[in-house]
Amino acid sequence: MKFNKVLKNLSTYEAGKPIELVVREYGIDPKEVVKLASNENPYGTSPKVVKKISSLAKNMYLYPDDSMFELKEALANKFQLDSKNVIIGSGSDQILEFCIHAKCKTGSNVLMAKTTFAMYEIYAKQVGAKIIKTKSSQHNLKEFSKLYKKHGADVIFLCIPNNPLGECLDKKDVYKFLESIDKNTLIVVDGAYQEYASFKDESKKICPKDLINTFPNAVYLGTFSKAYALGGMRVGYGFAQEKIISTFYKIRAPFNITTLSLAAAIEALKDEDFVQDCIAKNFEEMKRYEDYANQKGFEYIPSYTNFITIRFEENLVSKVVAQKLLEKGMIIRDLTGYGMNAIRITIGTNEQNTKLFTLLDEVLEELK
Amino acid sequence: MKFNKVLKNLSTYEAGKPIELVVREYGIDPKEVVKLASNENPYGTSPKVVKKISSLAKNMYLYPDDSMFELKEALANKFQLDSKNVIIGSGSDQILEFCIHAKCKTGSNVLMAKTTFAMYEIYAKQVGAKIIKTKSSQHNLKEFSKLYKKHGADVIFLCIPNNPLGECLDKKDVYKFLESIDKNTLIVVDGAYQEYASFKDESKKICPKDLINTFPNAVYLGTFSKAYALGGMRVGYGFAQEKIISTFYKIRAPFNITTLSLAAAIEALKDEDFVQDCIAKNFEEMKRYEDYANQKGFEYIPSYTNFITIRFEENLVSKVVAQKLLEKGMIIRDLTGYGMNAIRITIGTNEQNTKLFTLLDEVLEELK
Repeated sequence: MKFNKVLKNLSTYEAGKPIELVVREYGIDPKEVVKLASNENPYGTSPKVVKKISSLAKNMYLYPDDSMFELKEALANKFQLDSKNVIIGSGSDQILEFCIHAKCKTGSNVLMAKTTFAMYEIYAKQVGAKIIKTKSSQHNLKEFSKLYKKHGADVIFLCIPNNPLGECLDKKDVYKFLESIDKNTLIVVDGAYQEYASFKDESKKICPKDLINTFPNAVYLGTFSKAYALGGMRVGYGFAQEKIISTFYKIRAPFNITTLSLAAAIEALKDEDFVQDCIAKNFEEMKRYEDYANQKGFEYIPSYTNFITIRFEENLVSKVVAQKLLEKGMIIRDLTGYGMNAIRITIGTNEQNTKLFTLLDEVLEELK
Repeated sequence: MKFNKVLKNLSTYEAGKPIELVVREYGIDPKEVVKLASNENPYGTSPKVVKKISSLAKNMYLYPDDSMFELKEALANKFQLDSKNVIIGSGSDQILEFCIHAKCKTGSNVLMAKTTFAMYEIYAKQVGAKIIKTKSSQHNLKEFSKLYKKHGADVIFLCIPNNPLGECLDKKDVYKFLESIDKNTLIVVDGAYQEYASFKDESKKICPKDLINTFPNAVYLGTFSKAYALGGMRVGYGFAQEKIISTFYKIRAPFNITTLSLAAAIEALKDEDFVQDCIAKNFEEMKRYEDYANQKGFEYIPSYTNFITIRFEENLVSKVVAQKLLEKGMIIRDLTGYGMNAIRITIGTNEQNTKLFTLLDEVLEELK
């Protein structure tokens, strides 16, 4: 059977290894496995959310409310938008798909940083679009401008702050750049980690309302998978002017969100104290990673997220370090696939981080 | 902003109205609203599934196991397949998308019955494919053959049994037809209601293993949303030979299923007694609808599913009947959008069906 040509050389996204896999492959007691690989909120799900899920489980024979009225209203209220400016996705991932499917086809140009969220490229390639990347790994708006002038673009992806590196553009620089972009280019501002960045440094904060009012061609993406501690529930959202949102609705499959995911997200929005508390702890713990890296003489990228990227010199191979940690039950992310000799570690709880330092010490000793 | 041309004239799928909407719009007590519109299993979620969901809710901060190892194994065991023949989707809907995205582009031909599941056409149009439909509303394989010989097709959709009409092709006729189809045409056998059809009549039963072994170009689709009573959890599956499945994997977004959905589906598969019991009750209650229709002189389509389609003569307008029932808190599906003066009613519990007959009597009286 012949399939669409564009699929021929596509690679599939490699997700962070789940705990279940390590248990199966290395026979490690699940209680001993620590996963600091997928930038989840390590402080667990809000107890209010857990209660809500349990109370609704008996209704799962019914389809979800496909209008998503309540969640859209809750998000609109929080961000002072109209619910017509809101679309809900199975993770903000799915809104990335909507962006690509709405704007791109074979031969379209998609502009992004060299090292950024892998799905931008994967979704773009699925429709045959051409990927244009900066030479710099981290977001460099001068390079973005040069490439845009040279090639144009149907979609531009800005990951603010950037995953998997952790750096973050300033809001004022982003705005200045966006002013130079043609209104027929779709600008995607991926704010999956914005809660962290704006907590650490106000100058990084992107206000979705102001963004989409200032730039009618912008889409702002947010997620419940990170600070809101709902990675397992798959809920993200997109904000944009109504014309863009209504086009996305033409692409969205009905019932793209489970009933429990909708309810969990609504409940999570009510528990802001929990979220803010988790973010504060995140940056306290982040300091321990910076100290550790300094102590060992490792270079790290100052991070505005809930993870940290540590680079190695030639004497250490990130792939080997990650594998050895995995065999000890510690799951982190190797960035070899992104062309870097580096590892990305999610900032865990105090206890998890202590364990990481201990095991990494062991691995470094073994590799001496 | 200009979007892809194919999106211009697309319509969006109109889902069955959720109970929440009727409560909001007509101010009816949610306890009084009955939804017989989306072919859910009216006997509720298996208590074992409810227990499982509650026990796992606290882990929702972690991403799902994207390998979906356990659910794929469970399905493979049940259907005597290898897990390489299995892909999981956010409802079988998502596998329909995979089929279209793998095979179709602008100008592709997609063949289907005139009145069948609306998403076949919507997904096909999203990529600019041309829709070829039989003249007959119900599946007519002679017409399928003629149209196939004339136009060819990249994808053929067979809904066995058919939603929203309820009729069901015989397995032997399906096989005979499929033998005449070129191996480069993807054949999609949508078995969303197969559990019902094969319970009622063994000659309707399609064995997925035999189907994909006999026809390397066939995909079998199943769902947990109907007999397995998990409409709110969004889990469906596709079975095919490995070459097809691995291509679908290139299109699938990571983490397309929530953790609770995976767990619920695994648990639901363990509770076959519950499912069989629900199906038996379904056909007992269906008899009441047939009797009711006969009594009133309404024509109905003999159904192999958990719903029944009742046609009206010119003296009744299905849209009006459905609206009047809605205002009384009874949600059913009007088929005007499918070009028919007919309503589709999901077979509910004994009590729900009694209520339907009472309210429909009232409506018929009012419309006299």
